[in-house]
Amino acid sequence: MTIKAVVFDAYGTLYDIQSVAAVTEEAFPGYGEIITQIWRVKQLEYTWLRSLMRSYRDFSVITRESLAYTLRVLGLEYDSGTFERIIEKYLHLDLYPDAAATLAALSGCKLAILSNGSTGMLGALVRNSGLDRVLDATISVDSKKIFKPAPEAYSLIESVLGVSPAEVLFISSNPWDACGAKAFGLNVAWIERVTPEAMALACVKNDVVTPLTLFKAIRTQMDELGIEPDYRIHALSELPGLVAAREIRT
Amino acid sequence: MTIKAVVFDAYGTLYDIQSVAAVTEEAFPGYGEIITQIWRVKQLEYTWLRSLMRSYRDFSVITRESLAYTLRVLGLEYDSGTFERIIEKYLHLDLYPDAAATLAALSGCKLAILSNGSTGMLGALVRNSGLDRVLDATISVDSKKIFKPAPEAYSLIESVLGVSPAEVLFISSNPWDACGAKAFGLNVAWIERVTPEAMALACVKNDVVTPLTLFKAIRTQMDELGIEPDYRIHALSELPGLVAAREIRT
Repeated sequence: MTIKAVVFDAYGTLYDIQSVAAVTEEAFPGYGEIITQIWRVKQLEYTWLRSLMRSYRDFSVITRESLAYTLRVLGLEYDSGTFERIIEKYLHLDLYPDAAATLAALSGCKLAILSNGSTGMLGALVRNSGLDRVLDATISVDSKKIFKPAPEAYSLIESVLGVSPAEVLFISSNPWDACGAKAFGLNVAWIERVTPEAMALACVKNDVVTPLTLFKAIRTQMDELGIEPDYRIHALSELPGLVAAREIRT
Repeated sequence: MTIKAVVFDAYGTLYDIQSVAAVTEEAFPGYGEIITQIWRVKQLEYTWLRSLMRSYRDFSVITRESLAYTLRVLGLEYDSGTFERIIEKYLHLDLYPDAAATLAALSGCKLAILSNGSTGMLGALVRNSGLDRVLDATISVDSKKIFKPAPEAYSLIESVLGVSPAEVLFISSNPWDACGAKAFGLNVAWIERVTPEAMALACVKNDVVTPLTLFKAIRTQMDELGIEPDYRIHALSELPGLVAAREIRT
């Protein structure tokens, strides 16, 4: 079936969440990278835990709570100005270098974001990066009060864009998100930003695994959830070719 | 209200999951600890993800899938004999040193386990460690086809033991589990096995944070989920005193 809409995950897929590290490193020299890694792990955990506990709070709250956890656990002292400066960066994340050109090349399809982010966070992020000019919709899971990979979250694509799951290509670099979207019934391309070879090499090279290698190990490789995305790509820039090839085949 | 039942989480609370490290280290010298850490992170993630994706598989499947993930990502080669030897250890985990004496001292209450483990895994573990002689029930979430911290999981305590949530003291060393049980309405004692002072000291001492410090950072400290357990203890051995003191107060 022809792809009528290409829908992107935001954090880690179109936007580089590691770009927060410049701000965290400035605030806490020597801890910049590790803060972003623990922060991200807890941010995701809290979305899943609050969804299961039926105690949903929106992603802006979870992002603050997971940062507070991270700084407390690392034993780092801070004032509210520092905390707010780090949080503010989440509204000004860098786009991946090939994001804008990819979206421009896909202009024949409906284009949207489906993200865990709150409506306010996503609106600011999309405006600040100029993507408001190319996206047809920015969809937050917030209206469902549950986070991805719950099916309710992915069901918003059809209700907002009016396209059936079979007509959607969903893009995520987050393995669990790619699996969740596929389980729901979307066509899915997973962006494998760290190849297994690079991952295994990093482990061997460091002999004793480093903290950053470790976070890559738990975040970047395809998960064992009994499901596989339809496509495995390595960069956003592969998408226009993939969509065009599918057009020809169908 | 008087405590009529004391219910324990199994993995990490009564049983030391790090005791798997002896077997993983023997199989993969130099990688023993790191395997157990990545394995545990992914094991938990998969329980939450599969619960949210509505693609439940029991904990024995998830334990195998998360181990397979771990070995693949670290680039470690193995045969099925090695894999099975590691998995087998999950049925023979060491009890924490104070577990048996604590349970004996609490014999005035109903005593049970409520665990994510499958019925088969838990049955073997409890028998192999001799706890079948002191526990009134070993409750698996499996009958609900959803994992903790979903309320359905905690609701099994009342349906199996016939005691209301207000009459139950639930014990877990897993911060998210303690929060989930409290959100459900149980009385909760959280076992803080790594104090914040020890945690912060480990971070400072290592300067560059090590992988093991990092896993402690994401697993052992109380989470920011907007909820607090009723009691914070440091070892199982504090429980008989805690229950007795509550008796006197009420």
